[in-house]
Amino acid sequence: MGVVVTNIKRTDKKVVDAFAEGKYGVATVHEAQGRKGLLAPEISPIYKGAYVAGTAVTISAPPCDNWMIHVAVEQCEPGDVLVLAPTSYSDAGYFGDLLATSLKARGVKGLIIDAGVRDTKDLTEMGFPVWSKCIFSQGTVKETLGSVNIPVVCAGAHVNPGDLIIADDDGVVVVAQDEAADVLKKSQEREANEESKRQRLAAGELGLEIYKMRERLAEKGLKYIDQKDYQKS
Amino acid sequence: MGVVVTNIKRTDKKVVDAFAEGKYGVATVHEAQGRKGLLAPEISPIYKGAYVAGTAVTISAPPCDNWMIHVAVEQCEPGDVLVLAPTSYSDAGYFGDLLATSLKARGVKGLIIDAGVRDTKDLTEMGFPVWSKCIFSQGTVKETLGSVNIPVVCAGAHVNPGDLIIADDDGVVVVAQDEAADVLKKSQEREANEESKRQRLAAGELGLEIYKMRERLAEKGLKYIDQKDYQKS
Amino acid sequence: MGVVVTNIKRTDKKVVDAFAEGKYGVATVHEAQGRKGLLAPEISPIYKGAYVAGTAVTISAPPCDNWMIHVAVEQCEPGDVLVLAPTSYSDAGYFGDLLATSLKARGVKGLIIDAGVRDTKDLTEMGFPVWSKCIFSQGTVKETLGSVNIPVVCAGAHVNPGDLIIADDDGVVVVAQDEAADVLKKSQEREANEESKRQRLAAGELGLEIYKMRERLAEKGLKYIDQKDYQKS
Amino acid sequence: MGVVVTNIKRTDKKVVDAFAEGKYGVATVHEAQGRKGLLAPEISPIYKGAYVAGTAVTISAPPCDNWMIHVAVEQCEPGDVLVLAPTSYSDAGYFGDLLATSLKARGVKGLIIDAGVRDTKDLTEMGFPVWSKCIFSQGTVKETLGSVNIPVVCAGAHVNPGDLIIADDDGVVVVAQDEAADVLKKSQEREANEESKRQRLAAGELGLEIYKMRERLAEKGLKYIDQKDYQKS
Amino acid sequence: MGVVVTNIKRTDKKVVDAFAEGKYGVATVHEAQGRKGLLAPEISPIYKGAYVAGTAVTISAPPCDNWMIHVAVEQCEPGDVLVLAPTSYSDAGYFGDLLATSLKARGVKGLIIDAGVRDTKDLTEMGFPVWSKCIFSQGTVKETLGSVNIPVVCAGAHVNPGDLIIADDDGVVVVAQDEAADVLKKSQEREANEESKRQRLAAGELGLEIYKMRERLAEKGLKYIDQKDYQKS
Amino acid sequence: MGVVVTNIKRTDKKVVDAFAEGKYGVATVHEAQGRKGLLAPEISPIYKGAYVAGTAVTISAPPCDNWMIHVAVEQCEPGDVLVLAPTSYSDAGYFGDLLATSLKARGVKGLIIDAGVRDTKDLTEMGFPVWSKCIFSQGTVKETLGSVNIPVVCAGAHVNPGDLIIADDDGVVVVAQDEAADVLKKSQEREANEESKRQRLAAGELGLEIYKMRERLAEKGLKYIDQKDYQKS
Repeated sequence: MGVVVTNIKRTDKKVVDAFAEGKYGVATVHEAQGRKGLLAPEISPIYKGAYVAGTAVTISAPPCDNWMIHVAVEQCEPGDVLVLAPTSYSDAGYFGDLLATSLKARGVKGLIIDAGVRDTKDLTEMGFPVWSKCIFSQGTVKETLGSVNIPVVCAGAHVNPGDLIIADDDGVVVVAQDEAADVLKKSQEREANEESKRQRLAAGELGLEIYKMRERLAEKGLKYIDQKDYQKS
Repeated sequence: MGVVVTNIKRTDKKVVDAFAEGKYGVATVHEAQGRKGLLAPEISPIYKGAYVAGTAVTISAPPCDNWMIHVAVEQCEPGDVLVLAPTSYSDAGYFGDLLATSLKARGVKGLIIDAGVRDTKDLTEMGFPVWSKCIFSQGTVKETLGSVNIPVVCAGAHVNPGDLIIADDDGVVVVAQDEAADVLKKSQEREANEESKRQRLAAGELGLEIYKMRERLAEKGLKYIDQKDYQKS
Repeated sequence: MGVVVTNIKRTDKKVVDAFAEGKYGVATVHEAQGRKGLLAPEISPIYKGAYVAGTAVTISAPPCDNWMIHVAVEQCEPGDVLVLAPTSYSDAGYFGDLLATSLKARGVKGLIIDAGVRDTKDLTEMGFPVWSKCIFSQGTVKETLGSVNIPVVCAGAHVNPGDLIIADDDGVVVVAQDEAADVLKKSQEREANEESKRQRLAAGELGLEIYKMRERLAEKGLKYIDQKDYQKS
Repeated sequence: MGVVVTNIKRTDKKVVDAFAEGKYGVATVHEAQGRKGLLAPEISPIYKGAYVAGTAVTISAPPCDNWMIHVAVEQCEPGDVLVLAPTSYSDAGYFGDLLATSLKARGVKGLIIDAGVRDTKDLTEMGFPVWSKCIFSQGTVKETLGSVNIPVVCAGAHVNPGDLIIADDDGVVVVAQDEAADVLKKSQEREANEESKRQRLAAGELGLEIYKMRERLAEKGLKYIDQKDYQKS
Repeated sequence: MGVVVTNIKRTDKKVVDAFAEGKYGVATVHEAQGRKGLLAPEISPIYKGAYVAGTAVTISAPPCDNWMIHVAVEQCEPGDVLVLAPTSYSDAGYFGDLLATSLKARGVKGLIIDAGVRDTKDLTEMGFPVWSKCIFSQGTVKETLGSVNIPVVCAGAHVNPGDLIIADDDGVVVVAQDEAADVLKKSQEREANEESKRQRLAAGELGLEIYKMRERLAEKGLKYIDQKDYQKS
Repeated sequence: MGVVVTNIKRTDKKVVDAFAEGKYGVATVHEAQGRKGLLAPEISPIYKGAYVAGTAVTISAPPCDNWMIHVAVEQCEPGDVLVLAPTSYSDAGYFGDLLATSLKARGVKGLIIDAGVRDTKDLTEMGFPVWSKCIFSQGTVKETLGSVNIPVVCAGAHVNPGDLIIADDDGVVVVAQDEAADVLKKSQEREANEESKRQRLAAGELGLEIYKMRERLAEKGLKYIDQKDYQKS
């Protein structure tokens, strides 16, 4: 504890920008990278409609102590997303509109926090998105050191500084820095593939046909039975 | 497991349409049918303002396996509502925008699921309402059979295929198929009765008077005491 | 149980009005009064954007029994906020649009309830704000007495009748009646102070500088280390 | 509400006795009947080591109102197990040592309750087992009717009066009355089959071999890789 | 914050000793004092079989900071029970075997804590009972002041210093200092009354008769119906 | 997914044995290694009194699918502890007495699982300790591959294969393989230091004196005030 790692390597800006432009959703990215990296479903946005793709600046903070956020601000660059993991359960409101003002001034895109947030009306009006475990006005102290830009486990997911963070209405997913370019490609392919499926389904075709599921279902033993016969059995 | 019941009997279309037209809310319907049939309060809509009255197509699905949704789509008719109950706790995202596209093409009105859902931004934009336990991008597999149109317990409520489902901002209530006509009548009466009460209350009359509660309260022993005297005691 | 305390003393109207005008948020008021009086984070608004400052009329109600709300209505005056604490855990829907109509007719500003609420679509359209533990259509009975205007513990906070209640998107805070004037003054000062900070932070100044944190961080042992050196260790 | 169904048909006593003698555990019975009928994992025993096989007398009780337990006692026969499902969430302590004394005098084997219980030290000393959602001294009232021996949903499982209830340290499972004989046979077979497996496993044989899993694992694509090679990739 | 109130008035020692001798359980005391004062059911003993009746020394502690326990030890006298309420949610382990050794040396009977505890095997072997929200080894810091012997809300119950605390396998109840003598008398009466009921129930008499419930049940509309007739309806 | 890493490097056996002999508790080890590595408090032992120090064989398993446990058994050596992390939330019972028989035959010391377990009575009688999120008889399938001996996040903690696992009544802590020798030394020192403290505290000395806290408390502003004076203020 008590370490600030400086000059971190970040995910390639072109890759991050391509995600931000395509707005590949959390569900898409999660599938594209082989179903890993999701934060727990308790983490939800304070308002709907936000989309963020950015590079992680990580904070390992003591419970109910937000001192390290002030330290982390200085380490942020435009395009970053702050990711805060407390070292023990906390629902305290680590973050409010003053810190958001400061982060916004530095070009930070949003905050992911496995704890509480407050001033949510102000944050909504400012358009500074936060994904948090809860909304709670209970404040914090500035007494104990934590660390900045060390690896953390945030809401059950491993996040390294510089990793790519994608967040939308569905929640948050982290993409490892050295896999981001590959995941981008797969996300693009996935989107393209889904678009053709979407049109066929919209036209009334069945997934059972499109995905050729009937044979495998029958093999597994699926039986169709008329309700009249079912009720007799 | 592994049964698809076909040609199910559904709640009378005229009754369903009368509910849909009157937009009798979940609270009203629940009271009208004698305070039963509510799904647990964890089940909430992914967006506000939707109202659905439709007939249940039920799915009993393995945890984290959405294969049976594809099977169920084929069993759906216009006016149906899909009701999915996992056989074990799951917060996985069984459902997203592709399945919604397919259901919408068949005239399905919405989904009730005691598990997770994803692509919620897309679902909101499409206007396909979902009532779920959570929002989570964690996907599912297609490995194990479940059943379609068998009786299920969904979020604590017993649902038979063909039953009437009512869902709004307050949650979800199920009405047994053979009670639906009677519940419609009682819902209409209840609404009419409430309207007159609403006007009297809006004019400043007290419920204590309208419902003639004073005598029974006194019988039970209710005492009024001035704050000055209360603080002395 | 079974007591209605009448003629309660309320927080000075001028003070309440000053809060209502300034819209001092829950987080601000909570800090201004020394970080106490917050209700638990489970208590959240049924819709976003509401702000209430009013005087508490308290209800201690049996679980799943809303009889006392009808009794409490008569004790309400314009500017009051109803605060209901069940004597045992309950997620039942104690409150709906009829009671809201009645309260609105008497000038009541909102409801705080450590239990459930229903008819939330109607309440939203009426503009009657409720902060509750959950939304649930399961109704209540009218069988057992409770009390009105006695001290209660609501969602972990002690509330006396006549206390000042502040509620917004962040949740709810209670201010003791005899401290309200002092807390108003401190809230005003806090807001003024924050405004100047906000401008400096928006201009890109660091909190580390504004709050002069560097020295104390160093004293505690905070170390900065380049990522290349960190990875070697 | 307000119905007591009398002279219920119960699961065949010989079948119940065979379960009680064989002490077929909840996990075994659950598997034997095709993985259905389990109550939710929140339901746990107040003390370890109890085993119960008995016939259900069901109670649908209002939240925080234990009046119907007194009514149900009269309907109980030796070998019964009481199953209480509240109509709305309740953690109240519906049950204590006096009711247990009364039930024990009638030959009732235990209580399953999706709510709270109290006097647990006395119940433990009496050897009256209870499986409950929680332990809580908060008592109940006797104001509102419920029903006895109607079908209920208890902790997510459908229970009909007369059904077989099996409960042990793992939790509770319900077996439909007309399936009990068949489930007994399958439980006995399962136990016999497991015993031979147990001996082979205890001797060091691998499940991979006994269950012949290697081929199917390989088909699915499972790969073995030495740690040195894995770290390079 | 930051106040230690000294020379607190405690509940009369004779009354406390009478509770300790009679071992009046939490459920009994809770009923005897009119169903109030219970701590939430999340608070449970780390081992079974302990019974404590003692006088409260209260601690209001910052989240995850146990400094004030050291301060409180000095304020304890033989027969006290420590009651710790964090000012914000915390599951940290505030307390272990060293602090227990210290408290035991001063004659303190146990700890009630709305947070976590650790070293539970040692505490069990020492026979120092703790009622806590959870067991967790995550430690605390000693950075921020709290207060000792001020009124606190602990797990939903209001506790004043010097109040009587009763704790057993069922949980914890607090009795106001000036009501303790009266509650003792009522607990004794209740126990005596229950003993005669217990004997009648053990002999097979029905509560329906002993409590003369039949008439009131009929008035409320309770109906008995044979299962054969019920199934036809 | 679908990888089994073989020939993993394990924590030095002498170090593991020294932990096992000294029975350094989870709280001690957690402090000794700088307050990191704890699994979440939901993970608790199925019976009290067990202590385990062993080397991790890790499993990343699909939700509700225990196939990989069979695969992992083959990778286990005497002294190992199995650590299972599902890739999505699951409360299913992955593990029962047959698998425990197999693991015991290979010298495995216990199981840590962020999911459910069943056959707990048998496991207790066998003396095979399990630390789990819950006890639940709901079984699993064998349909989908996972991986063995890859890094996992289990109940919020990062576990690498071969890491040291310590588990007791308080929960579970993981020690990184290359820090284990150092943590052993610090645990031994900590225990020695605590023993002297324990004797002084048992003799009635105050922690305030032993740890010389008075000065720092006064600096922070702690005030002592007689109750009579406090009540006037």
